[in-house]
Amino acid sequence: MEQLKELKHLIGQISDLGGAMGLLSWDQETYMPPKGAEARAQQMATLARISHELMTGEKMGGLLEDLKGFEEQQAADSMDAAMIRVARRDHEKRTRIPVDFVEKASLARNRAHHAWIKARQESNFALFQDNLQEMMDLAREGAELVGYEDHPYNAVLDDYEEDAKVSEIKTVFASLRDQTLPLLRAVLDAGDATDYSILNRPLAAEKQKDFALKVARDLGLSPEFSRLDTTTHPFQTNFSIDDIRITTRYDETYWPTALYGVWHETGHGLYEHGVNPELERTNLARGTSLGIHESQSRMVENMICRSRAFWQHYGADFSAAAPEVAADLSAEELYRAVNRVQQSLIRVEADELTYNFHIMLRFELELELFEGTLAIKDLPEAWNQKMQDYLGITPPNDALGVLQDIHWSSGLIGYFPTYSLGNLYACQLWNAAAQDLGDMDALIAQGEAHKIIGWMRENVHQYGKMYSPRELIQKATGAPLNADHYVKYLNAKYRDVYGI
Amino acid sequence: MEQLKELKHLIGQISDLGGAMGLLSWDQETYMPPKGAEARAQQMATLARISHELMTGEKMGGLLEDLKGFEEQQAADSMDAAMIRVARRDHEKRTRIPVDFVEKASLARNRAHHAWIKARQESNFALFQDNLQEMMDLAREGAELVGYEDHPYNAVLDDYEEDAKVSEIKTVFASLRDQTLPLLRAVLDAGDATDYSILNRPLAAEKQKDFALKVARDLGLSPEFSRLDTTTHPFQTNFSIDDIRITTRYDETYWPTALYGVWHETGHGLYEHGVNPELERTNLARGTSLGIHESQSRMVENMICRSRAFWQHYGADFSAAAPEVAADLSAEELYRAVNRVQQSLIRVEADELTYNFHIMLRFELELELFEGTLAIKDLPEAWNQKMQDYLGITPPNDALGVLQDIHWSSGLIGYFPTYSLGNLYACQLWNAAAQDLGDMDALIAQGEAHKIIGWMRENVHQYGKMYSPRELIQKATGAPLNADHYVKYLNAKYRDVYGI
Repeated sequence: MEQLKELKHLIGQISDLGGAMGLLSWDQETYMPPKGAEARAQQMATLARISHELMTGEKMGGLLEDLKGFEEQQAADSMDAAMIRVARRDHEKRTRIPVDFVEKASLARNRAHHAWIKARQESNFALFQDNLQEMMDLAREGAELVGYEDHPYNAVLDDYEEDAKVSEIKTVFASLRDQTLPLLRAVLDAGDATDYSILNRPLAAEKQKDFALKVARDLGLSPEFSRLDTTTHPFQTNFSIDDIRITTRYDETYWPTALYGVWHETGHGLYEHGVNPELERTNLARGTSLGIHESQSRMVENMICRSRAFWQHYGADFSAAAPEVAADLSAEELYRAVNRVQQSLIRVEADELTYNFHIMLRFELELELFEGTLAIKDLPEAWNQKMQDYLGITPPNDALGVLQDIHWSSGLIGYFPTYSLGNLYACQLWNAAAQDLGDMDALIAQGEAHKIIGWMRENVHQYGKMYSPRELIQKATGAPLNADHYVKYLNAKYRDVYGI
Repeated sequence: MEQLKELKHLIGQISDLGGAMGLLSWDQETYMPPKGAEARAQQMATLARISHELMTGEKMGGLLEDLKGFEEQQAADSMDAAMIRVARRDHEKRTRIPVDFVEKASLARNRAHHAWIKARQESNFALFQDNLQEMMDLAREGAELVGYEDHPYNAVLDDYEEDAKVSEIKTVFASLRDQTLPLLRAVLDAGDATDYSILNRPLAAEKQKDFALKVARDLGLSPEFSRLDTTTHPFQTNFSIDDIRITTRYDETYWPTALYGVWHETGHGLYEHGVNPELERTNLARGTSLGIHESQSRMVENMICRSRAFWQHYGADFSAAAPEVAADLSAEELYRAVNRVQQSLIRVEADELTYNFHIMLRFELELELFEGTLAIKDLPEAWNQKMQDYLGITPPNDALGVLQDIHWSSGLIGYFPTYSLGNLYACQLWNAAAQDLGDMDALIAQGEAHKIIGWMRENVHQYGKMYSPRELIQKATGAPLNADHYVKYLNAKYRDVYGI
């Protein structure tokens, strides 16, 4: 088993390089002085290159070849076998992509990113059009290099959601769309007497931070292994199971931004921290996919922290911590206010009910662009039409429409669907947890939401990347992905909130 | 010139790895959650190992061999030639040390460090004795592996102060000792009516920080390329010429700790920032030695910020920023108070006059231990005797005596002398600067101390590691190192302060 030891050593080195790259990136967003950027980019490129060489090198190839027999003899739940499988998958995917293509794509992304910034500033899609074409061409070229089954889009999906299939996503999204569009119509038609101005009551950043962290701590995010910093764009990252970093931003006249931002990232952080420590320094010590990751963040943010039971438990604490906001507010008033459904233009500000329409719109258009059935130049019109069809509003300009997201300019094709998959996974996992834990609302109302996290740890977190998202959902819930859980959840919640 | 290009690429990668290692280490001291330590140690070890492999590998060896002819054709001030020379030196030194020895030494240091912590806690030198023996044995073994001229101690010195010679240090220290011991006696015999209690007037950390940074900014440490954080043990590090990090600690009942700490680290930071940007990402983009580095930090801390002229300029600012400390104080009172000479036990708290005796004591004892003429078990007694001889006091226990410094437990043999070399270099450079700039006190009093930094930048900083400390001092001052500059400085300053 000398080869297994060598493989572990090699994977450990790649893992260490990953941790170091994570820190270089985190520091860039949090504390790096502005002029440090140029050298930082070089440092990240060098570490990425060394990591790539280790992953695609002859040594890795030889070890994986030697270990084929060993791998086949292992039980299905063997950590060693999973580690070899993931290493083989990464090795094969990355060796199929020539260095020339990687460099060409990197340069094109860099150009596209700058073009997108300018196009968005000037709200002029034409300035980004050629770059978007290039991004789509590169995505297709990459798919051909890597290979795929059935549809080339499956190759790009696989980068973010292992083994996801475009056909399945279409089916599940269609089911979601058909079942929640009538609900959205009904909600928008219902009257709404809620006082949303309470969301704009001023609250100092420090107080927002303290209360957000209090809840995060209750859920299990201890300062022993984590910290919270401030950045323009909130994110979660980690450099090991016991070194979790989350960030947020503070709007002193809209307190939900920081609170729900912190709780969202807390969900991501608890997932990464919940991985079995035996997987540390292997390629399995990470969340298994973007979709499953998003399920954990959206679950904490929405299913726990936007529930009535949550405010029943924390309403008094919030009033005490922030009397200038909540001294005169009931749990019910807080609950209603943070669950407002709105026809809004911007995805990242969307509520739980409209959010998925923002995603479906992007997925459908992206797929048509990828397949070539929609011309790039016709995208803004198609975007605006779908906004009208789904949400009943039309963006006044491209900056608030088709140019709002960074993803396409960064070459992130196949990424958007994972956001909605996250919502779907979250609800399906929640219902499975409820079978073991009983009344979930009662738990939350009693301040025992950490028990829900405990269930997720046992059934999701601990496995890291040992299982693909498909396998994990089957294992944890006893069934494949199904939109019905989420449809029922949205119906129950919003019919209640809006008294329909 | 394909080989030169390849060498630069390789050195660039090693430089990037160095920057990443610097950040891993900085983050460990500043922001890392406690439980992140274990994974962090792995990450640092992996990057160090990769860097070591690049430095000692066949590729590096081959390129250096190929470039010998090119190197010899270059002018003495050629950056390329300097880069090749430094790479050759590092390559040769490191290839002479077998991996087994590196690992053995690393494990021994780890044991020694833990033993030292325990020994210091219990103030029991016996608990550290065997580990110190091992550190000395390893230092000698390392010297034999690397090779040396004249004396094996020259090999360990060379790690911190390129090309320094034990014989020269002995000579210069003897001169320093003989000329300043009478001064110290005279100062201690002189009366002293200064009110030192003003140093203990309470001042909030935030105010200390603001004032310390104001001065640092005036000297040129801009937030565009630097930042200040808080750590238990203050330090300076940097990840590129434009990414300088300094740290300090705050004692709210002794404001000089943070102020003079920040100014000391500012000197280090300005040195690293002052390196010629053309040297970035090469092995020359660093201060040339610990001694020259210390000259820049001690110059800012002591020669600028502990001068009468400094307080003449900044006294009013300090009174305004910290009226609770300085509203009723004259520049003269501040100047006198921050220049107290004391018979003290602890090196890091020592004043300018006694500081060098702490260093000489360590150098002399370390050399005897290294040579084997002093037995380890006899060290505490020898330490206490020298403390009595030089400073007229005897430590009440080993924790406040021989066990106070971390250096020996970390295998840093040959390091201590660089502190005093820094003081000597500082004064010699200062006098050379004065020949160009005229009245240095007048500059400082007019708030133009940045011009002194400008001179240092022109004559010291910009060269990075292009010249050895010996070459640099000769080039910048027109003479080899000479203790007389410092002796005159100390005499002038302390005879004035103490009215002798």
